[in-house]
Amino acid sequence: MPLSGPQLEHIVINALAEDLAWGDITTDALVPYSLEGMATILAKSEGVLAGTEVAALVFNRVDSTLKVELVLEDGVHLKPGDVIGAVTGSVASILRAERTALNFLQRLSGIATETTLHVERVKDCKVVILDTRKTTPGMRFLEKYAVRIGGGKNHRYHLGDGVLIKDNHLAALARLGITLAQAVHQARERAPHEFKVEVEVTTTQQAREAAAAGADIIMLDNMNIEEMRQVVSELKGKVLLEASGGVTLQTIRSIAETGVDFISIGALTHSARTLDISLELANNP
Amino acid sequence: MPLSGPQLEHIVINALAEDLAWGDITTDALVPYSLEGMATILAKSEGVLAGTEVAALVFNRVDSTLKVELVLEDGVHLKPGDVIGAVTGSVASILRAERTALNFLQRLSGIATETTLHVERVKDCKVVILDTRKTTPGMRFLEKYAVRIGGGKNHRYHLGDGVLIKDNHLAALARLGITLAQAVHQARERAPHEFKVEVEVTTTQQAREAAAAGADIIMLDNMNIEEMRQVVSELKGKVLLEASGGVTLQTIRSIAETGVDFISIGALTHSARTLDISLELANNP
Amino acid sequence: MPLSGPQLEHIVINALAEDLAWGDITTDALVPYSLEGMATILAKSEGVLAGTEVAALVFNRVDSTLKVELVLEDGVHLKPGDVIGAVTGSVASILRAERTALNFLQRLSGIATETTLHVERVKDCKVVILDTRKTTPGMRFLEKYAVRIGGGKNHRYHLGDGVLIKDNHLAALARLGITLAQAVHQARERAPHEFKVEVEVTTTQQAREAAAAGADIIMLDNMNIEEMRQVVSELKGKVLLEASGGVTLQTIRSIAETGVDFISIGALTHSARTLDISLELANNP
Amino acid sequence: MPLSGPQLEHIVINALAEDLAWGDITTDALVPYSLEGMATILAKSEGVLAGTEVAALVFNRVDSTLKVELVLEDGVHLKPGDVIGAVTGSVASILRAERTALNFLQRLSGIATETTLHVERVKDCKVVILDTRKTTPGMRFLEKYAVRIGGGKNHRYHLGDGVLIKDNHLAALARLGITLAQAVHQARERAPHEFKVEVEVTTTQQAREAAAAGADIIMLDNMNIEEMRQVVSELKGKVLLEASGGVTLQTIRSIAETGVDFISIGALTHSARTLDISLELANNP
Amino acid sequence: MPLSGPQLEHIVINALAEDLAWGDITTDALVPYSLEGMATILAKSEGVLAGTEVAALVFNRVDSTLKVELVLEDGVHLKPGDVIGAVTGSVASILRAERTALNFLQRLSGIATETTLHVERVKDCKVVILDTRKTTPGMRFLEKYAVRIGGGKNHRYHLGDGVLIKDNHLAALARLGITLAQAVHQARERAPHEFKVEVEVTTTQQAREAAAAGADIIMLDNMNIEEMRQVVSELKGKVLLEASGGVTLQTIRSIAETGVDFISIGALTHSARTLDISLELANNP
Amino acid sequence: MPLSGPQLEHIVINALAEDLAWGDITTDALVPYSLEGMATILAKSEGVLAGTEVAALVFNRVDSTLKVELVLEDGVHLKPGDVIGAVTGSVASILRAERTALNFLQRLSGIATETTLHVERVKDCKVVILDTRKTTPGMRFLEKYAVRIGGGKNHRYHLGDGVLIKDNHLAALARLGITLAQAVHQARERAPHEFKVEVEVTTTQQAREAAAAGADIIMLDNMNIEEMRQVVSELKGKVLLEASGGVTLQTIRSIAETGVDFISIGALTHSARTLDISLELANNP
Repeated sequence: MPLSGPQLEHIVINALAEDLAWGDITTDALVPYSLEGMATILAKSEGVLAGTEVAALVFNRVDSTLKVELVLEDGVHLKPGDVIGAVTGSVASILRAERTALNFLQRLSGIATETTLHVERVKDCKVVILDTRKTTPGMRFLEKYAVRIGGGKNHRYHLGDGVLIKDNHLAALARLGITLAQAVHQARERAPHEFKVEVEVTTTQQAREAAAAGADIIMLDNMNIEEMRQVVSELKGKVLLEASGGVTLQTIRSIAETGVDFISIGALTHSARTLDISLELANNP
Repeated sequence: MPLSGPQLEHIVINALAEDLAWGDITTDALVPYSLEGMATILAKSEGVLAGTEVAALVFNRVDSTLKVELVLEDGVHLKPGDVIGAVTGSVASILRAERTALNFLQRLSGIATETTLHVERVKDCKVVILDTRKTTPGMRFLEKYAVRIGGGKNHRYHLGDGVLIKDNHLAALARLGITLAQAVHQARERAPHEFKVEVEVTTTQQAREAAAAGADIIMLDNMNIEEMRQVVSELKGKVLLEASGGVTLQTIRSIAETGVDFISIGALTHSARTLDISLELANNP
Repeated sequence: MPLSGPQLEHIVINALAEDLAWGDITTDALVPYSLEGMATILAKSEGVLAGTEVAALVFNRVDSTLKVELVLEDGVHLKPGDVIGAVTGSVASILRAERTALNFLQRLSGIATETTLHVERVKDCKVVILDTRKTTPGMRFLEKYAVRIGGGKNHRYHLGDGVLIKDNHLAALARLGITLAQAVHQARERAPHEFKVEVEVTTTQQAREAAAAGADIIMLDNMNIEEMRQVVSELKGKVLLEASGGVTLQTIRSIAETGVDFISIGALTHSARTLDISLELANNP
Repeated sequence: MPLSGPQLEHIVINALAEDLAWGDITTDALVPYSLEGMATILAKSEGVLAGTEVAALVFNRVDSTLKVELVLEDGVHLKPGDVIGAVTGSVASILRAERTALNFLQRLSGIATETTLHVERVKDCKVVILDTRKTTPGMRFLEKYAVRIGGGKNHRYHLGDGVLIKDNHLAALARLGITLAQAVHQARERAPHEFKVEVEVTTTQQAREAAAAGADIIMLDNMNIEEMRQVVSELKGKVLLEASGGVTLQTIRSIAETGVDFISIGALTHSARTLDISLELANNP
Repeated sequence: MPLSGPQLEHIVINALAEDLAWGDITTDALVPYSLEGMATILAKSEGVLAGTEVAALVFNRVDSTLKVELVLEDGVHLKPGDVIGAVTGSVASILRAERTALNFLQRLSGIATETTLHVERVKDCKVVILDTRKTTPGMRFLEKYAVRIGGGKNHRYHLGDGVLIKDNHLAALARLGITLAQAVHQARERAPHEFKVEVEVTTTQQAREAAAAGADIIMLDNMNIEEMRQVVSELKGKVLLEASGGVTLQTIRSIAETGVDFISIGALTHSARTLDISLELANNP
Repeated sequence: MPLSGPQLEHIVINALAEDLAWGDITTDALVPYSLEGMATILAKSEGVLAGTEVAALVFNRVDSTLKVELVLEDGVHLKPGDVIGAVTGSVASILRAERTALNFLQRLSGIATETTLHVERVKDCKVVILDTRKTTPGMRFLEKYAVRIGGGKNHRYHLGDGVLIKDNHLAALARLGITLAQAVHQARERAPHEFKVEVEVTTTQQAREAAAAGADIIMLDNMNIEEMRQVVSELKGKVLLEASGGVTLQTIRSIAETGVDFISIGALTHSARTLDISLELANNP
């Protein structure tokens, strides 16, 4: 399924408005629109490619006469020097679109790369890597796409499509005398029936309570390995278990080996470094 | 000057549409709107604070009856445990706004922190640290603000407010038989008169040509220290000199010591890690 | 939790743009802005009230100096003559907002009323009444709210927040040699883990297959009472069962008595008649 | 004249944003984009078709490579089983667009059908059936189009394109000592000259006053048959007469036979039931 | 009735986005936000004031803490030196809003002034001065408002709120064998009943045909004085007569004296010069 | 470089929404969509053409099947009767787009013409004619384009892309005890380094101070010829000198002859009269 939909177009239009609302005065002053040429998009470092269709859309919105040929597709492992694609047409238009197209490609590939690094670290474990809602404001639709390209799965897209009872909910409910178990029942009854009910817990005792109350998924927040192992030994198979909180490339493997079903990692989106990708104009078009 | 303007509102509305377009089904199911409380925004790691006004705006857009008190202001150096601010009012509204507010705070503080790290490394040199247009699509207005908070200055905001003749422009012009010097003259003549003319060069010879042609600023792209020193010795004071390309915390000091006027660094915005900041609901409101 | 959020504002602005983009030439020609008065919002027929906060927002967007006092709140059973609320301030502003405010109130109350009619018909059965995505384009957020006010629950909000394998999916998959059971497994594996997997079936045999394959919810599409009873006797308690298709006030009770867990009804939103509500200007302000 | 214009596009984009902003997770998980197929749009009940171009636009916005062939055009009387059109291309894209396209088709055809029912009831009378502004917020442009397709004509589109002095205007003016006749003169003088002046009256005496004051159109609001006949006998041919208020299929004929020129009916748009139309995927593409 | 409505806000937001999307770098660099002051808005030439509420809205959107006091209201005749209003608060905010506020005030006052010049030239004739749709794209709502302030009335706002059969319509219809009289009948029958039917004619013979066919308004396009007089002598009182085409301050009086009911003038909006208005910061706040 | 970019599309969509949001009821009532024809766009007076691509975009947005052939391009000197272009296709669509397309063409050509009048008056002087930010709200992007077409150059686009210290800044700074010279230094230090620093002065003494402080550009505001000559004699070649304030076709030449580098003129955009351009339907298509 190619990347598409109302948000894609909205995000691209937004990005172009940022960079091109007042034109490109350098290019306007120097490069005649009629000069035709070809530019290649090149990987400058190692990683996982994501966002090629977004980049193509950027070029086409800037000038619908540009021809974009994608050589590699999202998900490919890049080596420095790999040709990702080529853009042919008015050189001036290519230059106007360059930075915006690269900003998308580099950020999304950075996230896909970060995700793959984590996924590969645990690839022989039966665990699924998840993202979070810790995304860059305005980019969530694409950043979550990049996580999927990197081999992860998506946790909730937004506050309206999943039930996740967090510590702050429990703290608030405690003031009303409502227990964790009661909260699970209430969420089950009141929230749409097609959503599973997930609860965030910080102790093994809370995990037991959540499971007993019928939670579908239990998020083990910042537990240590020992605690997670204990919860897995008691609850695995009865509920889905998700480890969360401060996961790093150093700790992910031992977490996975506890037997949890999922590991969710905010850093996939909030702290990925961009991948180095550049556009080079061919000398001999 | 407080952060304000049309883009701020646009970006915040966009972000809330992402997270809250279909409500918050967990909070709706569990927390009565009438429950009042207080939440504190806390630093969990060390860094430079940025984005407090954005976070405040998020809370106010979600529920105009929330009261946001900012204890610290942008630019402050945070230590773990520092209270950044407090939000008082409907707990349900606080929970609905939490993630979006934190996403802004964490990302902008991450960028301010990254910038300050670089700025401090060269603080006794007379050099100015600049950002680039390598920002997250849709967030440029705020990301460049965070750079300023971190002690950097902003390079061009977009393609319409600065003249920067880059390698790809020169490559295109070469095909038309136009030299670097001619390009500088042409840009001077055709672009608005209130912009300086900047040229990106990769060799000392090109730097000399650019200066001779009357460029106001010369960007030394990926030159080695020796080359930069040479250019500085010949041109410093006649034109402004800006080092660029692959600058890291390891290399920045030796670059600064060549005597360049500016160092521009894409990583300030494209590869900053977010700063850890959290919201905690008070138990005894 | 009061009705709020980005969509509410978007929908109200859209509606006012429709009716007031070019002003109100009648009121402009006749009624001086300075004339103050009071208008009451009155029920003209029996039903369930919904949309009072939307109406209030309409009045406030037209003129922020209008004071709206809501006497009754959403969910109340209305009798003809009941005073729903009162608006005080510039008569001209009240007249400009009148039709838009009433259009929201009447439509949303119509849906709440239609929902309640269905809910009450089965109130002693343990069945939950659900809506569908058969809503008026652009009004889904509010129409689904009205269903909740009427005592129903919401099915999927949109294509991104629930897994529902429909007849057309199965038809497509059949061409690829993929069975219903395989489809269920594939959806479980690929879709986000926080969503249950629902399958639409038309025969008892398909229902058994879906259950065996591990579906969480089975939608019994246009089955007759006998078939539904059979499915309930075999699967109730193992999976959630949802009856759907051509449900009417005449048939709903016998469907509920089969023991299904849910009944989903498109007519709640697509064929509700509006409730008669009017605004009357007081003679003696 | 094909349906077109800025509002059409705005409404369709809005509707797709509602249903597809976060993708179609079921289809994404199951149906490969490359699977090609054909789907037919079928009438499931009797009525008048409206909205085919809107549906076609929905399919094309979701995937511009889909081919939509419309077999029947707006205004045709449908019988169950009639093939309205066919969509060919990626099955996944067809499934993503299906519900939004049908929601438009069903609602607009429902309104066209309701209108035609009323129009046919009085087809041998010289009376014109009109709609009102009692439309679904956000859908007025299309709902009024559907009324035209059903054989009705449109009353005012919005508050800025017609002068209609209503009961609430007269009530407000009474407080200023301004009579109905003075109101008519004032509206004539102050409102744009290209609009006729219409007055809503509830008694025969008011009708006479309005006519004497030079009103172009008199709306007889909730008058009984006897009163309407009286007004017609006195004023027909001198002013245009419009009956309004509580018109039903049972009463419309006797109202028409009084000789009024127009009958305006809010129920055409506010209480039409949708027409049953479905999309079926062909097994053998 | 104060100027208000969805378009006003849309236009102001648009204008501020143009000027302030990237901040005000001069003011940011120089003027601390905390510096308070007062600025007066002063007339620098003679004319008619329009747009004060728009200007006030601009200041308030830039900074909601600014206090705007309007001394004069729209419609007042200005002399050089007249104080129109005063703005108090943060000097930096006043400076950021200054140009946008003045651009509205100057243009709208220019149009009001131009309109008044025409209106006064014929003030003892019973003729009404009208505008046209020859407005600046995006500003029609406000430009037509300024015409009303200047003493004119508004012709059609847009293509959807009036029937005006123009020369190009007649040329097209001629190719179908449809006469002017048939066109009038067809428009009467098909267009909404609340609009009068207006026809543009260029000869006295056409004017007679239009009147005989029942047109409500006849636009005499570029007729000479003699022809207009002839048409008036034959048709005045039977239809409304509107002179149009090339009207100037030199010719308007003789046109008015022919006895036509209306004179429509594109130059009111398309060629008005702006009025000189400035903002001056008080030295002693 | 053809006119393009996000603002162009935004402005055209905005303009069409103004005129066509509710359709074209005259054309809808009279002209069948299937009638094909050709219309020519004709100059009716002398001037400089600008906006042809905008007009073409208008026609294409109204109906993508229209074919627009542009005979003349922007910048051409028009004589009455010159054929600018031709539009072929559905006559109904041409009529719907006509007014909006012409409103753009006429206004932009008016500005280009006004600019050229000024430019030609000083064409043998080495002076550059500049515009200002005194543009019509919402149209700045296109109005500044028209100035370039007319032979002028653009001053600042908005408050974010140039440093211009104006009289009101200096007045504010005086209250803080900050001198003109200090203001220049502060702006240089704090504003982005790629912008020159411009100062507005009213006396020769201020001009000297500004130059001494290192300003790049000095705007001589409303100085008399003698004063300008004096400033030129002292500062020409050391800083760029820009004359501004009350420049007319009568005074421009003597101003230019003082030797200033630039003359900026608000009237280019705020008081240009539109150029007369019309669309005529061919009788024999």
